[in-house]
Amino acid sequence: MFESAELGHKIDKDTYKQQVPGLREALLDAQFDLAQTRKFPVIILIGGVDGAGKGETANLLNEWMDPRHIHTEAFGSPSDEESERPSMWRFWRALPPKGKVGIYFGSWYTEPVVKRVYGETDNEALGYSLEEIVRFEKMLTDEGALVLKFWFHLSKDKQRERIHSLEDNPKTRWRVSEMDKRHLKLYDKFRDISEHVLRETSTAEAPWIIVEGFDANYRNLTVGKHVLEAMRKRLDNPESRPHVSIAPPILTPVDNLHIINTLDLTQKLDKAEYEKKLEKYQGKLNLLTRDPKFRALTTIVVFEGSDAAGKGGSIRRITQAIDARSYSITPVAAPTEEERAQPYLWRFWRQVPRRGRLAIFDRSWYGRVLVERIEGFCSEYDWMRAYSEINDFEEQLAGNNTVVLKFWLQISKEEQLRRFEERQEISFKRFKITEEDWRNREKWDAYQIAVCDMIDRTSTSHAPWTTVEAEDKNFARIKILKTLCDRLEAAMKELPE
Amino acid sequence: MFESAELGHKIDKDTYKQQVPGLREALLDAQFDLAQTRKFPVIILIGGVDGAGKGETANLLNEWMDPRHIHTEAFGSPSDEESERPSMWRFWRALPPKGKVGIYFGSWYTEPVVKRVYGETDNEALGYSLEEIVRFEKMLTDEGALVLKFWFHLSKDKQRERIHSLEDNPKTRWRVSEMDKRHLKLYDKFRDISEHVLRETSTAEAPWIIVEGFDANYRNLTVGKHVLEAMRKRLDNPESRPHVSIAPPILTPVDNLHIINTLDLTQKLDKAEYEKKLEKYQGKLNLLTRDPKFRALTTIVVFEGSDAAGKGGSIRRITQAIDARSYSITPVAAPTEEERAQPYLWRFWRQVPRRGRLAIFDRSWYGRVLVERIEGFCSEYDWMRAYSEINDFEEQLAGNNTVVLKFWLQISKEEQLRRFEERQEISFKRFKITEEDWRNREKWDAYQIAVCDMIDRTSTSHAPWTTVEAEDKNFARIKILKTLCDRLEAAMKELPE
Repeated sequence: MFESAELGHKIDKDTYKQQVPGLREALLDAQFDLAQTRKFPVIILIGGVDGAGKGETANLLNEWMDPRHIHTEAFGSPSDEESERPSMWRFWRALPPKGKVGIYFGSWYTEPVVKRVYGETDNEALGYSLEEIVRFEKMLTDEGALVLKFWFHLSKDKQRERIHSLEDNPKTRWRVSEMDKRHLKLYDKFRDISEHVLRETSTAEAPWIIVEGFDANYRNLTVGKHVLEAMRKRLDNPESRPHVSIAPPILTPVDNLHIINTLDLTQKLDKAEYEKKLEKYQGKLNLLTRDPKFRALTTIVVFEGSDAAGKGGSIRRITQAIDARSYSITPVAAPTEEERAQPYLWRFWRQVPRRGRLAIFDRSWYGRVLVERIEGFCSEYDWMRAYSEINDFEEQLAGNNTVVLKFWLQISKEEQLRRFEERQEISFKRFKITEEDWRNREKWDAYQIAVCDMIDRTSTSHAPWTTVEAEDKNFARIKILKTLCDRLEAAMKELPE
Repeated sequence: MFESAELGHKIDKDTYKQQVPGLREALLDAQFDLAQTRKFPVIILIGGVDGAGKGETANLLNEWMDPRHIHTEAFGSPSDEESERPSMWRFWRALPPKGKVGIYFGSWYTEPVVKRVYGETDNEALGYSLEEIVRFEKMLTDEGALVLKFWFHLSKDKQRERIHSLEDNPKTRWRVSEMDKRHLKLYDKFRDISEHVLRETSTAEAPWIIVEGFDANYRNLTVGKHVLEAMRKRLDNPESRPHVSIAPPILTPVDNLHIINTLDLTQKLDKAEYEKKLEKYQGKLNLLTRDPKFRALTTIVVFEGSDAAGKGGSIRRITQAIDARSYSITPVAAPTEEERAQPYLWRFWRQVPRRGRLAIFDRSWYGRVLVERIEGFCSEYDWMRAYSEINDFEEQLAGNNTVVLKFWLQISKEEQLRRFEERQEISFKRFKITEEDWRNREKWDAYQIAVCDMIDRTSTSHAPWTTVEAEDKNFARIKILKTLCDRLEAAMKELPE
């Protein structure tokens, strides 16, 4: 894999001087078009061996292009706000919006590689991380990002030569750290593991570009031309990403037996029983959220359901039991301008709370496979891939001591009509039924199919769906409170003392 | 000041039960109107003595209103990302956008009060903090925010009674902390200092509302009615905030001698001299930004100047000398949707970097007193108050080990014309002169007046303006680089070893 990057590539001074002006001009033009059209973001990853010109390359791109539209970031140790969230959170928050260029050092590759080299993880754990990375990058490219991954390579001899020459020069001595010297000793191990990593993560959408790092002229021209060609290709062929799914269609069960029509919507709780249980579970929830162990967890509760299914009322039965300082509620509406310039899940990632807090989502990322699917707001390909992207998101949350609860509130079509009519009689404007509610109601059957697909495809062991028979509000509220208590209790038991 | 809150206010159960339903209804209606119109944000501060119902009140408002549009926050110890910025940064980042309600515990009052009670600060330092707070709240109300400040009071006897009764009940014992008991001993001191604080910070725009906290019914009705009346008044009289300045007009000096026309624009550097100095100061800047002390500072560099004055080129001479991982550039364009829902300075506060980084602003918060003033994008009152708001902002930055540099690049009207014409001949589209550039040029004189006012009113010892004679690009670039080096060097010398 690294053979071509040990050939001693070199560009002489004259050729370099002759080629650079035109290249810079073209790069600036491409960047200008990108900033004007805001068609996509450019994500440039910089990896490779020490001394092979990683920092120099980032500086070069900032010099050759307009640095005002480039964001360069090296990820050091995570801040406390970062370490309380899943490890990918800090990469999500650093993603460039459409129209901008982001240059990232090491990035999501650093931790898996370094941990494997130092023997803190085994091949299996590394493989798992790499699969996660491949899916993450696939999501980025599916969302339209141009992902360019540069790996700067030096042969063992050249690396030694480079580090010693940096050390010998008083002006550059500071650049050689103890870690560099330690890494030099681990060269062979690094090389083997890097080769494995590059092989596993070189995909059609985001291939690695390996660059021999010894000769600066060669390195600079290679990187500059790659960035230019890649940007130009995407700018001039904006429709290159797949919008038509080649997946076979999802069919409903041929006997029409599905998860929703197996629900027993006749289940009820009478008022006396309801009030007894409400007090019991609200009291329990209150105690649980005051337990010191609660502060070691993050809790995320998702509410989905048809219009008038009782989401708002159920949410209030939860918040009544909890100190207002411990929860937040995100009502999911149309994305803002900043959110539209980012991948679909970005606006939910930014709402992931710190430890010890409970975040409630009134509607959620599942809008992608419900309303957006049914209304055609995104392509079939986009909502098809959303299932696995959502599963990845929730798996990362769950892997970070986050309890993820998802409630689907189901009522019958008749009950919805009854509630709509009841609301129309009410004088409070905030409960008025809108034209849109009636329009959604016409698509009842399509929604039911989408809901069944959603539950089938995203109910996982780490983030299961709870279907809630919501025909009777009392029954629904108690089921939700009890489920929340049970899940919290179980999660707290699993925590170390 | 607290006399009326020690009278033993009480509301009997029947009156309470009779009044609450209507109040809740009206509150929900007001909140609905607020969310629909997004006219202003509501900022509710909750302060007062322990055991007087602060937490209960926040929970109550969340229960009575729609919790999906309320954000409740208690500020604990700052995270590391927060402690690397000025202390107000975390309050800025928590401000509710227009249409939402934010409930804040303690907030910006906690630190000044607690520090004074414990004797860590003197009256003078407290007074200084309170002045800052008054100006901050004035800015909020000027920006249209509805600021409601509730202070919950208990007499000494009642506080003791409340804390003991909480302690006696096993269900509420957890709520009494060691700190509460310590505070009880300091009651008189707390009372004196609180009274002083309330007096100094009760303004016409944001008066304190003191509520006796012993009887929950009285407390709840009082708070609910205050919130309702205040929201209703603002919703029904949207034009209640001042838009017309009553300030006397700012006149230009009657002899027409001002800071801009004293600049000697004939200053030049020939190419050889320029290249020598460029190498010298870029080398120096490089060394300075690699000094460990640089990591203890934050550096903010603002570029303002007329079109074609050479801001971009000057910025590049700085970034060329610095590792791309150490700087960021924010080109200031039109605010986004999220930014428009916040006070004017919010979008700049969010760009304040962590320690050890240099943030460059290509145009800045000074747009308020330049383009917005001249184009009439904001009212006279708005740009007039911007001077002191900006001074406060920069003073807070400077107080937090931030080096604030501000460059005004000045060219002559003739030189601008020459550069415009030169650019029109250039084939690169990114340098094309737009209609807007020509339109701005027609307002040359108005801009000059605005620039002089800006420099007069915002050049302070902690954040001075550097006027740059930019007729000759070489001269300008070297002056900027040298100023930056000098300021960094001086700031690093002042740091403790």
